[in-house]
Amino acid sequence: MQETAPTPSHPATPYTPTDRTVPTRSPGRASYDRELVHAILDEAYVCHLGFVRDGAPVVLPTLFARVGERLYVHGSTGSRPLRAAGQADPGLPVCLTVTHVDGLVLARSAFHHSINYRSVVVHGVALDVTDPEEKRQALDALVDHVVPGRAADSRPANRKELAATAVLRLDLTEVSAKLRTGGVNDEPEDLTLPHWAGVVPVGKTYGTPIPDPDLATDTELPDYLRTR
Amino acid sequence: MQETAPTPSHPATPYTPTDRTVPTRSPGRASYDRELVHAILDEAYVCHLGFVRDGAPVVLPTLFARVGERLYVHGSTGSRPLRAAGQADPGLPVCLTVTHVDGLVLARSAFHHSINYRSVVVHGVALDVTDPEEKRQALDALVDHVVPGRAADSRPANRKELAATAVLRLDLTEVSAKLRTGGVNDEPEDLTLPHWAGVVPVGKTYGTPIPDPDLATDTELPDYLRTR
Repeated sequence: MQETAPTPSHPATPYTPTDRTVPTRSPGRASYDRELVHAILDEAYVCHLGFVRDGAPVVLPTLFARVGERLYVHGSTGSRPLRAAGQADPGLPVCLTVTHVDGLVLARSAFHHSINYRSVVVHGVALDVTDPEEKRQALDALVDHVVPGRAADSRPANRKELAATAVLRLDLTEVSAKLRTGGVNDEPEDLTLPHWAGVVPVGKTYGTPIPDPDLATDTELPDYLRTR
Repeated sequence: MQETAPTPSHPATPYTPTDRTVPTRSPGRASYDRELVHAILDEAYVCHLGFVRDGAPVVLPTLFARVGERLYVHGSTGSRPLRAAGQADPGLPVCLTVTHVDGLVLARSAFHHSINYRSVVVHGVALDVTDPEEKRQALDALVDHVVPGRAADSRPANRKELAATAVLRLDLTEVSAKLRTGGVNDEPEDLTLPHWAGVVPVGKTYGTPIPDPDLATDTELPDYLRTR
C-alpha cells in the first residue's frame, strides 16, 4: 500500500513554510499560495530534479506532471534516479524545481541587474508508483501536461511499455514559490546616469507544427494544437 | 592563491567522459564536444544549481556566465549556498545544469512522446572567488551573458556592492551535453494509427523593451537591445 497524498482542508490553504522553504535572501519574494504554486507548475512541463548520488548532487532535466497535490516524473526503469527510488526505503530524497523567466531587468548599475522570474521548489521524498491504475493516470497526466488533450488522442501504453516505465510520485507538502516581478530598482543617485534602463520581456513561443513524413496527407492538425 | 582553471591543449579537445557523465539511458544522445557544450551554455543565462544541505538535495535557479573553461555564479554573501561554499574546504560539491527545450515530439503512441532538448550537466566543486580582479571580470561576464555589451553600458559595482556579492567558480572539467533532435520514433505497426504526429517547435521570444518610468525621454534604446 502506498501512502495517500495529503488533501488540504481547503484548496486555498497555503503551504506551511518550513526551515527549507523560507529563503535567507529576499523573503518578500517567497510565496506559499497554493493556487500560485499550481499555476507556476502547470505552465511548465520540464523541471530540474535534484537528488544525491554517492554524496554528491545530481540535477537532471525531466518532464513532470501535476495531479492535485501530487507531482509525477517518469523514466526508464533502467535510469539511475528511478532505480534508486525503487530501491530506497522509504524513497529517494529529491528537490524538484521549476522556473519561468519572464524578463531581463536592466538597471543603470550592474549590481541591480536582475531577472523577472517565477519559480517553485518542492522538497520531499520521491516514491516508486506501483499501483497500476495510479501509474496509468500519471502517464496520461504526463502527456496531457505537455499538450492538454493529447493523451486521449494517442495509443495508450501497452503492457510491455508500462513495464519498461518507472513513475515516481512526489507529494506537494514542503513547497514554496519565489517571484520577481516589476521594474528596475536603481539607487536614487543613479537615476540620472545616461544608461538605458528597463525590462525586456521574455516569453516562450510555439512554431508551426511539423508533420511526421509518414503521416497520411489527410490527417488534420488537431484542435489542441491550433490554439497555441 | 586559487588554483588555475584547466586549459585544454586544443579548444576542440572533447571533455573526458567519467562515470558520472556517461548516462545509463540513451548514451547515443550524450556528447562531450567542447564547442557544443560551450554553445549550449552560452545560449542560456539561467542554470539550475544543485548542492547538498543537511544530506538532502537543493536545486535553485540562478544566473551564470562562462569565461573560457570556467563558469561563474553569484549571489548575496548571505545566501546559503554561497556561504556554504565559502566555508567548505575545498569548496561546495555542486551540479550545474542548463536546459533548452526545442520542440514537443508528438508520437502516435503515448510511450514515444518526447521533447527535443539540449542540456549540459557540469559536476564539480564550486570555489569562492577571492581575487578582486577575477571577481570583477566574473561580474562583468554575468551581465554580458544576459545581454552582450551591457556591462560596458552600466555603472560598475562599487566597493560596497562588491563586498556584498559572493562569486563562485566552477571549472569545466566533468561535463557532458545531452540532446534529442529530429522527429517522431513510432513503432512501425503504429504508423497507420489515425493520430496526428510530428514536432511542435518551441523557442524563446523577446518582447519590446519597456523603459523605466524614470528614464530621460531622450535616452535611446541601445543597439545591443535592437538586434534581439
